[in-house]
Amino acid sequence: MRIVITGGAGFLGSHLSETLVARGHEVVAVDNLVTGRRANVRQLKASGRFELIEHDVTEPFDVDGDVDGILHFASAASPVDYLKLPIETLRVGSQGTQNALELAARKGARLVFASTSEVYGDPQVHPQPETYWGHVNPVGPRGVYDEAKRYAEALVLAYREARGVDAGIVRIFNTFGPRMRPNDGRAIPNFVRQALAGEPVTVSGDGEQTRSICYVDDLVAAILAMLLETHDPGPVNIGNPHEISMRDLAQWIIELAGSSSTLEFIERPTDDPTVRRPDTTKAQRLLGWSPQVPVETGLQRTIEWFRTEAASAPVLTPGQTEEILNR
Amino acid sequence: MRIVITGGAGFLGSHLSETLVARGHEVVAVDNLVTGRRANVRQLKASGRFELIEHDVTEPFDVDGDVDGILHFASAASPVDYLKLPIETLRVGSQGTQNALELAARKGARLVFASTSEVYGDPQVHPQPETYWGHVNPVGPRGVYDEAKRYAEALVLAYREARGVDAGIVRIFNTFGPRMRPNDGRAIPNFVRQALAGEPVTVSGDGEQTRSICYVDDLVAAILAMLLETHDPGPVNIGNPHEISMRDLAQWIIELAGSSSTLEFIERPTDDPTVRRPDTTKAQRLLGWSPQVPVETGLQRTIEWFRTEAASAPVLTPGQTEEILNR
Repeated sequence: MRIVITGGAGFLGSHLSETLVARGHEVVAVDNLVTGRRANVRQLKASGRFELIEHDVTEPFDVDGDVDGILHFASAASPVDYLKLPIETLRVGSQGTQNALELAARKGARLVFASTSEVYGDPQVHPQPETYWGHVNPVGPRGVYDEAKRYAEALVLAYREARGVDAGIVRIFNTFGPRMRPNDGRAIPNFVRQALAGEPVTVSGDGEQTRSICYVDDLVAAILAMLLETHDPGPVNIGNPHEISMRDLAQWIIELAGSSSTLEFIERPTDDPTVRRPDTTKAQRLLGWSPQVPVETGLQRTIEWFRTEAASAPVLTPGQTEEILNR
Repeated sequence: MRIVITGGAGFLGSHLSETLVARGHEVVAVDNLVTGRRANVRQLKASGRFELIEHDVTEPFDVDGDVDGILHFASAASPVDYLKLPIETLRVGSQGTQNALELAARKGARLVFASTSEVYGDPQVHPQPETYWGHVNPVGPRGVYDEAKRYAEALVLAYREARGVDAGIVRIFNTFGPRMRPNDGRAIPNFVRQALAGEPVTVSGDGEQTRSICYVDDLVAAILAMLLETHDPGPVNIGNPHEISMRDLAQWIIELAGSSSTLEFIERPTDDPTVRRPDTTKAQRLLGWSPQVPVETGLQRTIEWFRTEAASAPVLTPGQTEEILNR
């Protein structure tokens, strides 16, 4: 099969590309490389089944030849990134999603859209089933990401209803693993980088807020099942119900890294969710899927990657990151 | 002053145009006439201060000369319309709003965006202050309208923050008055049309769900104050806190119309809000505004208009309406 992945050089996109190529599929990654990186997919070139097109998906695009499936994963995804790119983040959710859906319509391809647990906002129902409508501040600083994703969900279903496109939605909860950008501002890369450097590990607020964290290999298995094994519209929650407080997670990473770092508590971002845990009943029923990788194993692999690969990769300073984001 | 009104030939847009022209301002209405009507603004031509440009605001547009203010009011607004036009409704919220904001940026004009009480969805806080985050189903049938408006709110604030556009948001609660389309499917035109025809007045569900209804003249005063007298971002609720159940409203309209119609209860639409009432504290404080027209007076004027004008206007059959919407 031939699969188009928008955001294919990003953290999740590159893992999806890698698995599809390993299974013998062809992948066309479309990425503007604002938060994606060539280094994430360089190893796939040798297969002869991987192509990277540098393109901003908010501009119309086409792909030559047959396309059997589309994974629409392009977006800034970390608050540090999307707060710097508010209009671009909104636009990739609206125009980017529309361009991907138009491609799906032209090619007769199934499309899976990467939505997010952020559509639940700061939830008042716990854990969150797909039927929960969410608690999102449209005019808060995080609104640019959350509302872009909620809009895109509505658009995916509108194309399904009005245009007959075989499209589905996955709502991705916090995911971690190799190739997270060390400076992307999210908790796990921050914690790992700081622990490995022996610096204070910075936890926001009192650290009692929780997330449920899923190792990337498990996520990839679920996404590919949603693409290749069903025509269901979703939305389907994909995540590991293993819920942990940010304070405990920081402590755990310090221990696994064999670090002597201490915790340092910093200001908590506006509208930061207090709790987050997926109800994965639907994923189990629909996709026969449940996470297989213990969180500890995933953390060990991630720490190991940061210790070796990330250290040897050109590490961007925050100033360089900003320059790239602003270009 | 020279004011651009997207959706300027629609129900609200035509009243805004009329008041601005009457006050000596120039108005450029931009409307694709899908739910707007030339007849709504025909009387303004003679002033020499009104121009109607037939254009779909989801396509880029420019306006020659100076522009001092922009009212972005283009959108299908009735469930009957937006359920038939799901992709178009999403697109006018995203691309249409972006095009209007780009015009505001180019002209250095203040823009007021017509958001809606629908951003509160089926609210769990009553009455609704602007700080309430809402309770909206992104993947329900009404999601195409509600999420388009929530997205547009986030975009307006993103342009304000990132591009320095002087933009503000009003959240418009149910409004009624002359020039509502008799077949637009909303409760008041339905009730009035049925009462005047002596047909059964159809109330959905048990009719216990409430709305707060504002006469259009009051709404116009608030919108123009938001455009001309402040640079506040909002959001600001605009509506009449006069809350009434649909059953009582139907009964009241039957009485005011001197009709012998009876009530008929029909199926309630999916995700139809149970209650709706604006907290208007902010509008009072910021704009010195509160509604002045008693609901009974407004209903009498509306009934009178439907009795005379709507009767003499070419009344579209539901089939014709559908044809126009689908063209």
